[in-house]
Amino acid sequence: MPLDSNEPGIRALFRYRPETAHPLILLSEVLLCGESTLTRGERELIAAYVSARNKCRFCFYTHAAFAAVRAPEGMSLVEQVCEDLDTAPVPEKLRALLRIAGTVQEDARQVTSEQVDAARAAGATDVEVHDTVLIAAAFCMYNRYVDGLATFTPEDPAVYMARAEMSDGYVAVNGTPERLAS
Amino acid sequence: MPLDSNEPGIRALFRYRPETAHPLILLSEVLLCGESTLTRGERELIAAYVSARNKCRFCFYTHAAFAAVRAPEGMSLVEQVCEDLDTAPVPEKLRALLRIAGTVQEDARQVTSEQVDAARAAGATDVEVHDTVLIAAAFCMYNRYVDGLATFTPEDPAVYMARAEMSDGYVAVNGTPERLAS
Repeated sequence: MPLDSNEPGIRALFRYRPETAHPLILLSEVLLCGESTLTRGERELIAAYVSARNKCRFCFYTHAAFAAVRAPEGMSLVEQVCEDLDTAPVPEKLRALLRIAGTVQEDARQVTSEQVDAARAAGATDVEVHDTVLIAAAFCMYNRYVDGLATFTPEDPAVYMARAEMSDGYVAVNGTPERLAS
Repeated sequence: MPLDSNEPGIRALFRYRPETAHPLILLSEVLLCGESTLTRGERELIAAYVSARNKCRFCFYTHAAFAAVRAPEGMSLVEQVCEDLDTAPVPEKLRALLRIAGTVQEDARQVTSEQVDAARAAGATDVEVHDTVLIAAAFCMYNRYVDGLATFTPEDPAVYMARAEMSDGYVAVNGTPERLAS
């Protein structure tokens, strides 16, 4: 493997190749922390759900923690969504968006008009559908990037929770604001 | 579907949501057109190969054309790589990198040290391995984004060839340099 770093997951890759880190961090910042009618917690849940389906432990632990600190039910909500979306205690709009995200993860060509109509009927806007598809697609990239280069994944959930409680955004978390300012 | 545009593929999405277009265009620019010891044609071939495996017609046609205009064999090279990578007339280094890209597309957790060692033995640098993994991962995103939102795909190959011959980079092609300057 081309990396020689003890930093966990994608952060090692950001340090290894700052040229690609810049747009990758910017994308996650816009998608998950940018202006949106979806809450930060809802967007983190979509990211965690897709990462779970891709079996990417680093991204799942990371975004599950960011979702959990924003939900009254905490990590139990993330676990229920990943275990059985049909019965998980989420609003119908979010359930419909998560169904679309799951289809994008598996085979995006299979997203149906019925799925989109169901999300709209539950109150989703077109931009929310768009952003859900792109969050799901983006995590199919981040997950593969992290796992394809076999980065280090801490296994203690507390590491991720501490990080999620520490900061709101990825720019600050990744410590490269000067790059993003350019 | 949330889009109402006659623009093909990802370009309709860039216009629909400029906030996400910015990092997405920047990423493709850095990965495919930025400084690298891989040629532009090699990188376009990796993008086309992954898009073919994801059955994303818009991205395949687009990047196959960008690869074809840079190869003496033209489109025939792209077709041979997608049909049978083992026998396609590409240098061994590129063949080894394309094998890694194929694994990333399918399940990035299955990339092996043997695959990376084979690429190194054929002359690939660690950065080239890194960039191959990220190009493959990124196209797993772009492909899903385009297909998940059912964008319009022109079926005439000449449309894509004309575009590939017209311009070198994606910033210019997508006509949003003012956004990237910010």
